[in-house]
Amino acid sequence: MSTVGPREVIEKALAEGRTALTAPEGRELCQAYGIATPGEGLATSADEAARLAGEIGFPVVLKIVSPDILHKTDAGGVLVGLKTAEEVRAGYDTILTNARAYDPDAKIDGIQVQQLVGGGHEVIVGAVTDPTFGKVIAFGLGGVLVEVLKDVTFRLAPVSGDDALKMLDDIRAAEVLRGVRGAEPANREALAALIERVGRLVTDIPEIVEVDLNPVFADANGAVAADVRVIIGTPQPEVARLSREEILRQMNRIFKPRSVAVIGASAETGKIGNSVMKNLINGGYQGQIYPINPKADEIMGLKAYKSVADVPGDVDVAVFAIPAKFVAPALEEVGRKGVAGAVMIPSGFAETGNVEGQKEIVEIARRHGVRMLGPNIYGYYYTPENLCATFCTPYDVRGSVALTSQSGGIGMAILGFSRTTKMGVSAIVGVGNKADVDEDDLLTFFEQDDNTKAVAMHLEDLKDGRGFVEAARRVVKEKPVIVLKAGRTAMGARAAGSHTGALAGDDKVYDDILRQAGVVRAPGLNDMLEYARALPILPAPKGENVVIITGAGGSGVLLSDAIVDAGLTLMDIPDDLDAAFRAYIPPFGAAGNPIDITGGEPPSTYENTVRLGLQDDRIHALVLGYWHTIVTPPMVFAELIARVVAEERAKGNTKPVVASLAGDTEVEEASEYLFEHGVVAYPYTTEKPVAVLGAKYRWARAAGLLR
Amino acid sequence: MSTVGPREVIEKALAEGRTALTAPEGRELCQAYGIATPGEGLATSADEAARLAGEIGFPVVLKIVSPDILHKTDAGGVLVGLKTAEEVRAGYDTILTNARAYDPDAKIDGIQVQQLVGGGHEVIVGAVTDPTFGKVIAFGLGGVLVEVLKDVTFRLAPVSGDDALKMLDDIRAAEVLRGVRGAEPANREALAALIERVGRLVTDIPEIVEVDLNPVFADANGAVAADVRVIIGTPQPEVARLSREEILRQMNRIFKPRSVAVIGASAETGKIGNSVMKNLINGGYQGQIYPINPKADEIMGLKAYKSVADVPGDVDVAVFAIPAKFVAPALEEVGRKGVAGAVMIPSGFAETGNVEGQKEIVEIARRHGVRMLGPNIYGYYYTPENLCATFCTPYDVRGSVALTSQSGGIGMAILGFSRTTKMGVSAIVGVGNKADVDEDDLLTFFEQDDNTKAVAMHLEDLKDGRGFVEAARRVVKEKPVIVLKAGRTAMGARAAGSHTGALAGDDKVYDDILRQAGVVRAPGLNDMLEYARALPILPAPKGENVVIITGAGGSGVLLSDAIVDAGLTLMDIPDDLDAAFRAYIPPFGAAGNPIDITGGEPPSTYENTVRLGLQDDRIHALVLGYWHTIVTPPMVFAELIARVVAEERAKGNTKPVVASLAGDTEVEEASEYLFEHGVVAYPYTTEKPVAVLGAKYRWARAAGLLR
Repeated sequence: MSTVGPREVIEKALAEGRTALTAPEGRELCQAYGIATPGEGLATSADEAARLAGEIGFPVVLKIVSPDILHKTDAGGVLVGLKTAEEVRAGYDTILTNARAYDPDAKIDGIQVQQLVGGGHEVIVGAVTDPTFGKVIAFGLGGVLVEVLKDVTFRLAPVSGDDALKMLDDIRAAEVLRGVRGAEPANREALAALIERVGRLVTDIPEIVEVDLNPVFADANGAVAADVRVIIGTPQPEVARLSREEILRQMNRIFKPRSVAVIGASAETGKIGNSVMKNLINGGYQGQIYPINPKADEIMGLKAYKSVADVPGDVDVAVFAIPAKFVAPALEEVGRKGVAGAVMIPSGFAETGNVEGQKEIVEIARRHGVRMLGPNIYGYYYTPENLCATFCTPYDVRGSVALTSQSGGIGMAILGFSRTTKMGVSAIVGVGNKADVDEDDLLTFFEQDDNTKAVAMHLEDLKDGRGFVEAARRVVKEKPVIVLKAGRTAMGARAAGSHTGALAGDDKVYDDILRQAGVVRAPGLNDMLEYARALPILPAPKGENVVIITGAGGSGVLLSDAIVDAGLTLMDIPDDLDAAFRAYIPPFGAAGNPIDITGGEPPSTYENTVRLGLQDDRIHALVLGYWHTIVTPPMVFAELIARVVAEERAKGNTKPVVASLAGDTEVEEASEYLFEHGVVAYPYTTEKPVAVLGAKYRWARAAGLLR
Repeated sequence: MSTVGPREVIEKALAEGRTALTAPEGRELCQAYGIATPGEGLATSADEAARLAGEIGFPVVLKIVSPDILHKTDAGGVLVGLKTAEEVRAGYDTILTNARAYDPDAKIDGIQVQQLVGGGHEVIVGAVTDPTFGKVIAFGLGGVLVEVLKDVTFRLAPVSGDDALKMLDDIRAAEVLRGVRGAEPANREALAALIERVGRLVTDIPEIVEVDLNPVFADANGAVAADVRVIIGTPQPEVARLSREEILRQMNRIFKPRSVAVIGASAETGKIGNSVMKNLINGGYQGQIYPINPKADEIMGLKAYKSVADVPGDVDVAVFAIPAKFVAPALEEVGRKGVAGAVMIPSGFAETGNVEGQKEIVEIARRHGVRMLGPNIYGYYYTPENLCATFCTPYDVRGSVALTSQSGGIGMAILGFSRTTKMGVSAIVGVGNKADVDEDDLLTFFEQDDNTKAVAMHLEDLKDGRGFVEAARRVVKEKPVIVLKAGRTAMGARAAGSHTGALAGDDKVYDDILRQAGVVRAPGLNDMLEYARALPILPAPKGENVVIITGAGGSGVLLSDAIVDAGLTLMDIPDDLDAAFRAYIPPFGAAGNPIDITGGEPPSTYENTVRLGLQDDRIHALVLGYWHTIVTPPMVFAELIARVVAEERAKGNTKPVVASLAGDTEVEEASEYLFEHGVVAYPYTTEKPVAVLGAKYRWARAAGLLR
C-alpha cells in the first residue's frame, strides 16, 4: 500500500494520460479523507491470509491477484463469504490450485483478502461537475430507487455536516434510512460525515471531475464505500467575479443615472431610437437626456450630438438603438467617455450565431469598465427614477417588486400583466444574452435597493451558478427571490439549448440548488407573475399555523386541498379557541379547521371570526373563503375585511391574509379592492390565494423567520 | 386438505363468528381460483418429508406442527432452505429432537414441508371494500415502494386481463417488473392472471371484505402468493338503480318542463321565492309559471294558487322556496299532483344534522315517483329552455357545457366565471345534499342531450361510485366529462367529512378509478372552469404530434415545459417538414420543435407557418406563442390566426389550436377574440393553454380517438 498523498495520486494518473483512477488509487483518496472502504490486504501464504482476515473481520472475500488472470471468476479465483480462519486457509489453497489449473504459467502475486460488506442500506454518494454550478454532491438510495425512480438529491460542494444530514431527509424514500419493516436504521451521522468528506475531497482537488461511491453500505455502525470510481480531468476555469462594491458602484449609476445618452436617437416614428426617446421623455425621467445621432441637431426638442464624446459632462448610461454592425465603434466611444452602463438593445449577436461579434463588444466593454446589459433586450425600467429606457411603452405604477427576464417575450408579458393588475413595480429589466450583466449583478443591486422588497427573475440558464447562489443567499435573508427557471424538463431544456445556445443543466440539480439557496421557484409564468404581485404586499408569517375561515363549506374543502398542495399546515385548533370561534357561528356550522361559518351569515360573523383569527397569537395566517350572498354582498365583505385587517395591523396583529371569492362578477371588484388593501384575493379560484401564501411561507422559512 | 368449495369455507368461518380465514382456508380459496400458493404437505416420517420435498421442489422449509408449541422458532422447530432429500431427512430428525427437548409432553402432529419461495420480484396484490366503489383491487411492488412511497394502483373489481396488464404499468416503478440492473423480468401474463383471479374471487364472494396476498413472488416462471390473508364480513348492500329509460323520462321533464310551480312564491324582494319568480320570468322561460302561495292571489302578474293541487293541468317541476319545516306536507301535494321534479332549494336538512328530516322527504319523493334535486341547493339553469330556476341571477349565454356542483359556493363561482368569460353554457345544476338526484342521473340526461357537448362536475363524494363509473364510461365515448373532486388530500377529506357527513374515500382510489372511467380530472377549481370553457370549442385531435410555433423563443421554452407537464408529445419533425418550415422563417430562427420564427416577423410569417402546420397531416395539434411587436400587433395576429384556422377548417383541416400571448394589455382583447373564434388563447401564461390542450387529449385518449 503506497503512502503518497491524494495530490500525488492524481498527478501521477494525469501524467500517465489517464481519465480514471484505479480502484486502489480511489481507495487511497478515500482513506486520506476518512471515507471508509472495505478492509483488505494481500496475502502470500494461507496463514497470512487467515491472519489478515482476522484483522479485517469476518466474513471475507478471497480474490486471486495475477497480471495474467483477467477473468478471476472463470479461473476459480474468487471465494465469497468465508467465515473462519480455517475456511480462509482452505480457500487460499483452493484458489491457488484452481489458478494453476487454469493457467500453469500465470505469475501469481498472491491472494487479496477483502472484507465482505453488504449489510444495512445500499446508498449512492457521488459528485459531478455541473456546467452551471461546478462541483455538486449527489445522494440517493441504491438500486431501484435511484435507477428507476430517480430519487436523488443534489447540493453544492462542499457540503456542511448539517446540510449533509438534510440531504438524507431530502429524498422521497427518506423514511427507509430510519428503518422501516423492522430494518435496522442507518447511522445518520456516519453517513452524513461520509457525504461531507466527499464534498471536501472534490473541492480540495479540482481535477476530480466525477466520483461514484456506489454502493455505500450504511448500517447502524457506519457507512462503507464498497466501490469507488473517480474520473479526473482538467479543472473548470475559475470564474472571475467583481467585488460587491465594484458591482454596486456601477449598478447604482445605471439604475439612478443623472444622464442618459441614446445612441441612435431618432425623430422617425417606428424606429427603436424614437421609441426609446419617447419613453424616456414621456416616462417622466428628470435627468439629462442626450440624443446621439450624427445626422441630427435636435431630436424631440433636445439638442442632439454627433457622438457621445461630444456630450458636455458625464454620461451614466448609454442606450444603444443602432444595428449590431455599428455597435463596436460606438461602444469604444462610450467606453472612452467613462459611461457606467451600456444598455444593449440591438439583436444580431450570439442569439443569431454571431458569437464573435458578441465577444468583441464584451471585450471592449471590459476594457473600459463599462457594464453592459444585453445585448438583445427590450431595455429596462426603474420606476423610482421614472426611468423607461426601453422601446416598449412606459410603465409608472411604482411599487416594490423588481422583475427581470431573459426573453423579450416574457418581458412583454411582465409589462402587460403589471399594467392590467396595477402591479406595483420598482424595476423591469431585460437581460437577454447576458454577455456581461447577469442575475448576480442585479441581485446585488436589488439587495441594497430600498425601493425593492421582492425580486422575480425569469431565467433559462445561469452563467455563474455559484455566483447566483451566493448573491441569492444574501438577498433572501431580507427579501423574497422568486425564480421562474425555464427549460425545466428534458424537452424544455432541449428547446433552451436551441434558443440561447446555453447549456441548461439538469433540472433536478437546479431545483435542489435553488431551494438550497432559499429561492422561491415558480412552477410557471403566471405563478411567477402572481407571486411577484402578491409577495411584497403580504406580511411575513411568524409561524406555521394556518386557519381557514369560510362562508362556503365547499370552498373550505378545496382550500384544504390547496393548503396541503402548497406545503402548508392546517392548524390543529385548541379547545378554548374552538369554543371561542363557535360562539360566533351558527350551531350547525363547523368549527375545527376549516372554520365553516356557513352561508347566509351577516357581515358581523365574518368580522367576529376574522378578528379573532387575527388577534389570537397562536394563529399565524388566515385563508378566507367568501360566498356571495345577499346578506353579505362582495363589496361589503371586501370593505369589512380590509377595515378589520387594517385595524388589527395598527394594533400590531400583522399576519398574512389571503382570500378566495366565490360569486357572481362583483367578486372581481371586491378581490381587486382587497388586493389594494393588503389582502391577497382572487375570484373563481381556491388554488391561487393558497399557492401565493405557500410561496410566502417558503421564503419565510428560507429567511429563517419561522421557529 | 379439505375438498369443500369456497362458499363452504366462507360460510363455515362466518358460522363460527370469525372475521378472518385461517391460512389453510385462504390457500383453499386461492387454489379454487387458480392462484398459486407455495406447495406444502404434512409429513409424519423423515422419508415422507423427503418424498414430499421432492414433489414440491427444493429448497423447502420444515416446520413443526403441534398444538402445544406456539413459538415454533423458540422450540427449534423451523428449518429454512433445505436443498436435498438428505438434508430434509436429517432436518426432520433434528426438529423432532429439538421439539421433544423443548416440551417433552407436546403432542406432535408431524412436520410441515413447504416450498421455499422468495425469488424474483416481491409484489402485493390485494382487494378492499371501498365505501364508494365497493370491491377494489390493489397492486403494487412489495417492500419500500408500497410502504414508504405508496406506489400502488387500484381498479374496480372484477378486472379484465387487459386491465390487469395495464395495472402492472400503472405504478411509478413499473420498469422494475421488466427487469432492471440485470434482474430477471416478471412473467407479466402470470401476474396479470393472478390479479384477474383475485378480482373474480372477491366479486363472486361478496362476504370477502379484504384480501392481502403479500408478498407475491413473481419471476419469469410465474407468480406465487406466499402469504394469504382474507377478511370476511357482511356484504355491502346492493345499490338499487333506476333504468336508463326511467331516469330519462323524468330528467327530460325536469330539464325541458312545460310548466314550473314555485312553492313559496313571493312578491317581497329579498325572499328566495321572489328571486326564483324573477329569474324564471326575466330569464325568459316560455312555459307556464305557477306561483304557489296560500296568502296571495297574484304574484308578479301571474295568478297564484293556494296549493299545487289547485293548478289546472300538469306541472313538470316544482321549485321549493319555503323553510325546511314546511317541505314535507308540500312535497306530499307535489307528489300527488304527479310532478316530475322537486327542486329542493331549502337548507336545514342533513347538512345541519337534520338527517331524519331528509330521510322523510326522500321517502315521500320515492313513494310518489318524484325525482328530487337537493335539498340545500341554489337551483338549476338550462339555457336552451331559458330556464333559470334559481335564487341567484339569470344567465343566458347559451353554449354547450353543462356544469354541476355539490356546493353552493362553487355554483356561484361557476356563475361568475361564466359571466365574465362569456362561457357558453347549456346547464348549471346544484346537487347539494344529493338526497335523490345525483351525478349519475345528470350524466344520463346530458349524454343524450344534444345541447350539451361537455360536462363538468364539482363533487365531494359519490353516493354510488359504480353507478357513476358506468354512466361516465358511456358518456365519455361521446363527450368529455371533467371532474373536480374536492377532498383530494387527507386533510381535504377530513374537511369533506365535516361538511357533508359523507365518507370521502381515499383519493388514490378515486384518482385511479376516475381515470379508468375516462374522466378528465381537474386539479383545481379554476382548472375545472377553464377546461369547461375550452374543451367544447377545441376540435378533437387525431394523433399525438404536437407542434409549437412561436414568435418568442422564451415562450417556446416555457411552452415546451408545459407540454411535458401536460403529458403531451412534442413531435419529432421529419426532415422534409423541417425544410418546409425553414423556408418561411429567418435563417437564425430555429426550426425543429418548437419552431422559433423569431420576434419582429410580419404577419405573413405567422400565417405561412401556421397554415403549413394545419395542412400537414402528420401534425395533430398546434400550440402558438405570440410576442407583441409593432410589426404584428396583437389584434392583427388574432384576426389572422382566426381567419387561417377557419379557412383550413373549411377545407377539412380541423385540429386543436391553442395560443399563449405575451405582450402589453392589448393581448387580452386578442385572446378573447381568438377564444370566440375557436382558438383557445390566454394572455400572460404559457401553462394554461397547454394544460387545456392536455385535458382535451386525455379525453380523446379515453374516448379511443387516438391511434
